Amino acid sequence: MSNQIKISEDEFKNFEDRKRARFINSLSGFKSSNLIGTISSNGQTNLSIISSAFHLGANPALIGFIIRPDVSPRHTLNNIRETKICTMNHVLADFVEKAHQTSARYSVEQSEFKSCELTEEYLEEFKAPFVKESALKMALEFVREVKIEENGTHLIISKIKDVYLQEEMLCEDGFINLEDVGTVCVSGLDSYHKTERMGRLSYAKPDKKPDWLK
Amino acid sequence: MSNQIKISEDEFKNFEDRKRARFINSLSGFKSSNLIGTISSNGQTNLSIISSAFHLGANPALIGFIIRPDVSPRHTLNNIRETKICTMNHVLADFVEKAHQTSARYSVEQSEFKSCELTEEYLEEFKAPFVKESALKMALEFVREVKIEENGTHLIISKIKDVYLQEEMLCEDGFINLEDVGTVCVSGLDSYHKTERMGRLSYAKPDKKPDWLK
Repeated sequence: MSNQIKISEDEFKNFEDRKRARFINSLSGFKSSNLIGTISSNGQTNLSIISSAFHLGANPALIGFIIRPDVSPRHTLNNIRETKICTMNHVLADFVEKAHQTSARYSVEQSEFKSCELTEEYLEEFKAPFVKESALKMALEFVREVKIEENGTHLIISKIKDVYLQEEMLCEDGFINLEDVGTVCVSGLDSYHKTERMGRLSYAKPDKKPDWLK
Repeated sequence: MSNQIKISEDEFKNFEDRKRARFINSLSGFKSSNLIGTISSNGQTNLSIISSAFHLGANPALIGFIIRPDVSPRHTLNNIRETKICTMNHVLADFVEKAHQTSARYSVEQSEFKSCELTEEYLEEFKAPFVKESALKMALEFVREVKIEENGTHLIISKIKDVYLQEEMLCEDGFINLEDVGTVCVSGLDSYHKTERMGRLSYAKPDKKPDWLK
């Protein structure tokens, strides 16, 4: 490895705004890329890309994500508050430009589905739109929001209801193969990446080294 | 794409525990892989792998992560509560087996640094240990914890202080190149992946399609 350098808090605080955003957004590591689909009480749909979804628990099945009203319009947050539901849809390499484009500031009466050429899909009785092009889609039910007072963002805690996925993704032991369908991850604000499997490691125990599973 | 199948909440609730954990842990998409370094007030170090770190804001610079006291021992949480600091260190492909091994249930008097053959590094006056082998390391200051009542986990909100990284990773515009040093991401509980760059997309505007940046 090359030279280790230090960027102190005082230094990055004084970065120009956009540069600081790029820098700090890179620090947590690779991030998931998901589209949140919502519908307002009067039927207007909305689609918004996020990179902050994280696993919160398997029993009950909970997922969390952050909405920042300051940088993205509040349409997604308003719709979730009104209807108490949304969908979460994995972004694939096939449609990453269209997914990224949902971050543009469209007005409330413009649906990102139409503007970004992604297809609304309605599954069974669930009112919020899924993204037809995605290989893994979840129907989410709003549980509660936690205001992050430090910066005015909102943590949305949601319960996972139905999961729709491509049949070949689901392994017998419950693991879902995200890589072979082209699920992407993101780093920083705007860098998209496919993945390259190293393998799965056995459950760690204190008395032995983990094995790569066959 | 192949056949779209549905796994309902009733179905996955009835999966055997470990299968449900693998399934639900796969749903948020690719996750960051980080090592949290801590030290107790009497000098005992601890190292713990997490996949829940997420960007919380650039100004102030905040990062969030989840600690689940039920599956991992509470040592990390106790140390953060005692000392109000920790380090976060990106996991690289080079030492992914060692990083995974920190999830084994070591007793409180065993340091995962020693047991998993990773090297403690102390930088300037910061009391908590960094991971020498990592290419991106952060000194974090505890801000507060949010109890997630739904499942007994804890969201730790931390402020980013000093950042240490390899010189060649930092781009002029603030973006950090995580890929070329071999930073990994994880899917499910145990699957590790390198990444393959697609590129960076231009800032999205409503009236034009995004471009891949040169």
